[in-house]
Amino acid sequence: MSEITPILAAFAATTKAADIPAGATQMLRLSLLDWAACGIAGAEEPVARITRQMALDEGGAAQANLFGSPLHLPARAAALVNGATSHALDYDDTHFAHIGHPSVAVIPAALAVAQRQGSTGAEFQTAALIGIEASIRTGMWLGRDHYQIGFHQTATAGAFGAALAAARLMGLDAAGCAMTMGLVATRASGLKSQFGTMGKPFNAGLAASNGVEAATLVASGFVANPLALEAAQGFGDTHSAEELNSALQGIGKEWVFESVSHKFHACCHGLHAALEAAGSLGNIPADRIDSIQITTHPRWMSVCNQPSPTTGLGAKFSYGTVMAMHFLGHDTARLDSYSDALCADPALKALRQRVQVNDDPRIAETATILSVKMIDSNMLQAKHDLDEPMPIATRQAKIMAKATSLLGDEKSAHIWAMVQNAADPAELGKALHR
Amino acid sequence: MSEITPILAAFAATTKAADIPAGATQMLRLSLLDWAACGIAGAEEPVARITRQMALDEGGAAQANLFGSPLHLPARAAALVNGATSHALDYDDTHFAHIGHPSVAVIPAALAVAQRQGSTGAEFQTAALIGIEASIRTGMWLGRDHYQIGFHQTATAGAFGAALAAARLMGLDAAGCAMTMGLVATRASGLKSQFGTMGKPFNAGLAASNGVEAATLVASGFVANPLALEAAQGFGDTHSAEELNSALQGIGKEWVFESVSHKFHACCHGLHAALEAAGSLGNIPADRIDSIQITTHPRWMSVCNQPSPTTGLGAKFSYGTVMAMHFLGHDTARLDSYSDALCADPALKALRQRVQVNDDPRIAETATILSVKMIDSNMLQAKHDLDEPMPIATRQAKIMAKATSLLGDEKSAHIWAMVQNAADPAELGKALHR
Repeated sequence: MSEITPILAAFAATTKAADIPAGATQMLRLSLLDWAACGIAGAEEPVARITRQMALDEGGAAQANLFGSPLHLPARAAALVNGATSHALDYDDTHFAHIGHPSVAVIPAALAVAQRQGSTGAEFQTAALIGIEASIRTGMWLGRDHYQIGFHQTATAGAFGAALAAARLMGLDAAGCAMTMGLVATRASGLKSQFGTMGKPFNAGLAASNGVEAATLVASGFVANPLALEAAQGFGDTHSAEELNSALQGIGKEWVFESVSHKFHACCHGLHAALEAAGSLGNIPADRIDSIQITTHPRWMSVCNQPSPTTGLGAKFSYGTVMAMHFLGHDTARLDSYSDALCADPALKALRQRVQVNDDPRIAETATILSVKMIDSNMLQAKHDLDEPMPIATRQAKIMAKATSLLGDEKSAHIWAMVQNAADPAELGKALHR
Repeated sequence: MSEITPILAAFAATTKAADIPAGATQMLRLSLLDWAACGIAGAEEPVARITRQMALDEGGAAQANLFGSPLHLPARAAALVNGATSHALDYDDTHFAHIGHPSVAVIPAALAVAQRQGSTGAEFQTAALIGIEASIRTGMWLGRDHYQIGFHQTATAGAFGAALAAARLMGLDAAGCAMTMGLVATRASGLKSQFGTMGKPFNAGLAASNGVEAATLVASGFVANPLALEAAQGFGDTHSAEELNSALQGIGKEWVFESVSHKFHACCHGLHAALEAAGSLGNIPADRIDSIQITTHPRWMSVCNQPSPTTGLGAKFSYGTVMAMHFLGHDTARLDSYSDALCADPALKALRQRVQVNDDPRIAETATILSVKMIDSNMLQAKHDLDEPMPIATRQAKIMAKATSLLGDEKSAHIWAMVQNAADPAELGKALHR
């Protein structure tokens, strides 16, 4: 038995805000802006509308804000709606240590509970950061087997992080945090076989809502098996966990969340290293390109290597298409660049036919090597690894630009100011509605 | 790939009430009475109070009744509360084909949706029966491996049955029913490692609530992966399913639900065959007993063979204790017979020391052989198998007696009259509150 629950519970209950490094806090703030921008921009996606409508039809106590509505709902419902909505565009942050989307699972839970409990902005941000860190650590403990067999780490690991963020905001001690993890262990779920359907973003909502529910019940005396993950027949045994001790290394001192990736292209994260590598080559006229070779990790071959998609959604999972888009001057950061019409464009179809994708298990999952052969036989090469540190100022500028492109100048600046000043959760909540 | 989802979806959407055999309907009505009695009697158990309080604090649209409160709540919340409440005493029905508690997962979903949709009593009963049958078939398809690794069939298989009951009541066609199963596949969860905690009954609530949620969303256009169970990386692949084709044999013609077991002793179902065998021996003075030998299936050795429990809860999982209770004249059908005081009683302790439990893999899981050696060296032997058919009149009399002991004459007769007349779901809902 590899112990994890008591360690994460103590981490959640006892970490002092003063001991959190400034870099981790700053990264959380960037993720908060990124998350809010994705959610506001995604509020009219079908999964968001349908989930929100169910919650609004149920109604209930006015505890927390929603994306896409001026109304307030119970925290558990708001977490469900906001999780599904902020992941609807699949444009939110990703952590590759476990391959999951931490912000969309944890932040909706933390914000809804913070609004319900009347927490301060600082308490909210600390709890969200701790919950996110715990979700990534949980995902690392579950390991690649868990992901490969078909569990969606965003939903499964995410539920444990959401539960701890909620439990901390409710003032639960280490035993209470462990009990919350114990209860959420019987509730956490989410399958990768939903990818390509509304089920994928919905999974993020499940994680957030499950976390709020578990903490709320435990705060009222609910008794579950507190060895959530490592118990015999616990979440680990049943969910193909690798139970990696190394997942907890340095917890409380090192924040693995600091190596989170943000999306600067509105497509599958597996394509981003290739796009960054292409961007580093500067301006290349498309009509001078003979062919393009991409070398990537085998993991992505079944994820985002559709050779000739015909829909905007398919384009977001196609090396060939996004490479052709890039070299033909389409803005891969814009949501509306990916369309059915684009997929039918003869120039795009001609160029993407000349993109060849190879896999190599020796390359990092976060890296891609790009070779562009010009018609004059010149070869241009570039490699990009998303895991390479990006100066925080560069990242901040890129996230601000993304938020501005999604929300406009005024709204993005308003949210960024609130996030930087750790504004009251009620104020931040209000801003979720466009 | 062993196909199941389209078959169960078509079963749910197209089965005609007129084609359902009278025996299945009659058994459903007995289970309805049994379910209502367990829920009303369990309404003040801690898991029921805590879950109900969370739901009442959230509030919302007045759609469906709850056990233990005169208020109405949204159907999704009512299903959660009523599932957890009706399983709180662990006194509800069990099906041994998959080892699950079908009524507590499916009936709360069916009743809440029927109340919300204004369905007739006949529509409600048909949907509940179909959902229950589908949950057992799903559990049989998932198989013993799924249960043995640690999944709680009541919660997992139960969610699929609850989803189909809800989908049928909402008028979804076969494609809609399949989509509902697809969505609930990413939501269904529940671990056996919660046994012995409030998490166990809560799992039944999860199943019911997940079913209502999935059908409600799909009726509004939600798109999930409709190959819920058998998809690559679907619920089967990820949840250690055996994917047994035989599970679907005769569906729509044979109703496996008809072999459901009802509890006539307020303890673990693994102890019931031994108690029935003991009952068949007639009146034996305890002071003339030398020793008692029990032979049971190995499955039960880790479930209900606590040799010397000290609590009322522990007594419910102890062959020795319930045998001693029976021969000492304690009524094993009464909830209050199982107490900490009883466990400390010298006469009980002396007799239970003389109970020996052996396992034999050749015996059915539902059967027990009992040998009582008298001090005069006479040997009395009896065998009971819970799977042996019980005449419906006998079963009805036993369930009426159980309901009367839990609720009193008037209340149990009132509910039985409503159930027999397929009363309006709103009327039945009102009766959930004592």
